[in-house]
Amino acid sequence: VKLFNKIAIIGTGLIGGSIALAIKKKGLADEVVGVSRHQKSLLLAKKKGAIDRGSQSLDIIKGADLVILATPINTILNLAPAVSKLVGKDCLVTDVGSTKARISASLGKIFPAFVGAHPLAGSEKRSIANAHPDLFKGSICLLTPAKNTDKAALKKIKSFWNKIGAETRLLSPDAHDKILCFTSHLPHIVAFSLIGIVPAQYLKFSSAGLKDTTRIAASDSELWAEIFLSNQKNALGAIDLFLQQLLRIKGAIKRKDKKQLNLILTKARKKRVSLDL
Amino acid sequence: VKLFNKIAIIGTGLIGGSIALAIKKKGLADEVVGVSRHQKSLLLAKKKGAIDRGSQSLDIIKGADLVILATPINTILNLAPAVSKLVGKDCLVTDVGSTKARISASLGKIFPAFVGAHPLAGSEKRSIANAHPDLFKGSICLLTPAKNTDKAALKKIKSFWNKIGAETRLLSPDAHDKILCFTSHLPHIVAFSLIGIVPAQYLKFSSAGLKDTTRIAASDSELWAEIFLSNQKNALGAIDLFLQQLLRIKGAIKRKDKKQLNLILTKARKKRVSLDL
Repeated sequence: VKLFNKIAIIGTGLIGGSIALAIKKKGLADEVVGVSRHQKSLLLAKKKGAIDRGSQSLDIIKGADLVILATPINTILNLAPAVSKLVGKDCLVTDVGSTKARISASLGKIFPAFVGAHPLAGSEKRSIANAHPDLFKGSICLLTPAKNTDKAALKKIKSFWNKIGAETRLLSPDAHDKILCFTSHLPHIVAFSLIGIVPAQYLKFSSAGLKDTTRIAASDSELWAEIFLSNQKNALGAIDLFLQQLLRIKGAIKRKDKKQLNLILTKARKKRVSLDL
Repeated sequence: VKLFNKIAIIGTGLIGGSIALAIKKKGLADEVVGVSRHQKSLLLAKKKGAIDRGSQSLDIIKGADLVILATPINTILNLAPAVSKLVGKDCLVTDVGSTKARISASLGKIFPAFVGAHPLAGSEKRSIANAHPDLFKGSICLLTPAKNTDKAALKKIKSFWNKIGAETRLLSPDAHDKILCFTSHLPHIVAFSLIGIVPAQYLKFSSAGLKDTTRIAASDSELWAEIFLSNQKNALGAIDLFLQQLLRIKGAIKRKDKKQLNLILTKARKKRVSLDL
């Protein structure tokens, strides 16, 4: 079920590496090449059979009919012009960035066939060392076509993600960033804040509750700083809503208003329980 | 390895029921009786082999040499006087409440041999239906003796928890409530707040991050309202610290201060990573 001749993956970390392994496992291309700043990452990617060839230079992507940008957001934005000089107009280009409005606006202008994507997979673990060909199995990949996105390109990217195990859903770049701010960015901000203030000497008394609530605070902090800043307006709005809700709970505790507190917590509980149904 | 003749468990929910099952599994008593407001809970507890006899009336606890109060905090406080009229002065009394200062002050006066306990087990699931004899295996149970707690009573309660699989640690009731406020109560407050403001129509896009971060918001909301109110002073202090930290992150995002944001997130990340080591 070959879909492409040559796929170039720029950024051979957890996501890029897992995509490469999935491509190899499913035989979706004749050749997979990888680009990374880190020679070590390329060597391990080759050793794991994720890529056929790797290079620290972008030149290796020449002739690719699919380029996947799998680096942090700012790097995607910075590399795009150089990438465009190395590939043909027919080359399909996609990315896996966690926010989509800025990338879509910028890369949509640079590439004739660009389709933004955001696989809701991955974890707080990083690097090719943790990459796995089944990372996307049963997961959701959000595709964020803009108004002028080429329909054939969208169809092919959709097919690509389906083949490596993900169910795809379409969202506009703006809707994506608004929604993910609540379902992903704000939870990270909250988790980083929470673990930040737990006194270190108390950590030995932590139970599953604290661990689960803050698991995602073990994520790559620089990557997440970029995500928050690239979705600044939505992030600030979501933080304010969260602050208001927290102040409501604080007020009820301060007034010893058990009825109001129960009301807020029960409503929250019902919503959380519905998530598991 | 019989430790007691008759153990009475008041409150046959997840924790009380699991303790009962563990007692039976380890043969720690000749007889285990259960008290619950809910006939259904007692029937299931008997069916699962957790208790020998159950009753909705406290009278059934007469003659017990160990009474375990495993109800919500306010119910523990409310039932204690009636319990004290039914058991002898030698009867060991313990509880599993999530805050300890109020319970310790009150029950320490009522019972000659009271030792407060707080098993760091359990989950967002409730009721005897989810009870399991191995719930405490490998877990930590905090014991919170007061200055005047009987040493022999403490030793016996410690031995009891060790036998059903938990490692015990000692904390004063006040230290317990201060520490648990950060490791358990505040994470619950944050989780309830977070899920509370996620728009319902966005939930279908939630990934593992949101689910893990808010898992404990599926917990019994009335139980947690009681916990927050019974630890009011510590809870308000911890919320304020958390608010300050969140406002620091918000400020850095607002100012687009990547350096400061990185600093805060990286510090938090290191602390969270240390939790898994």
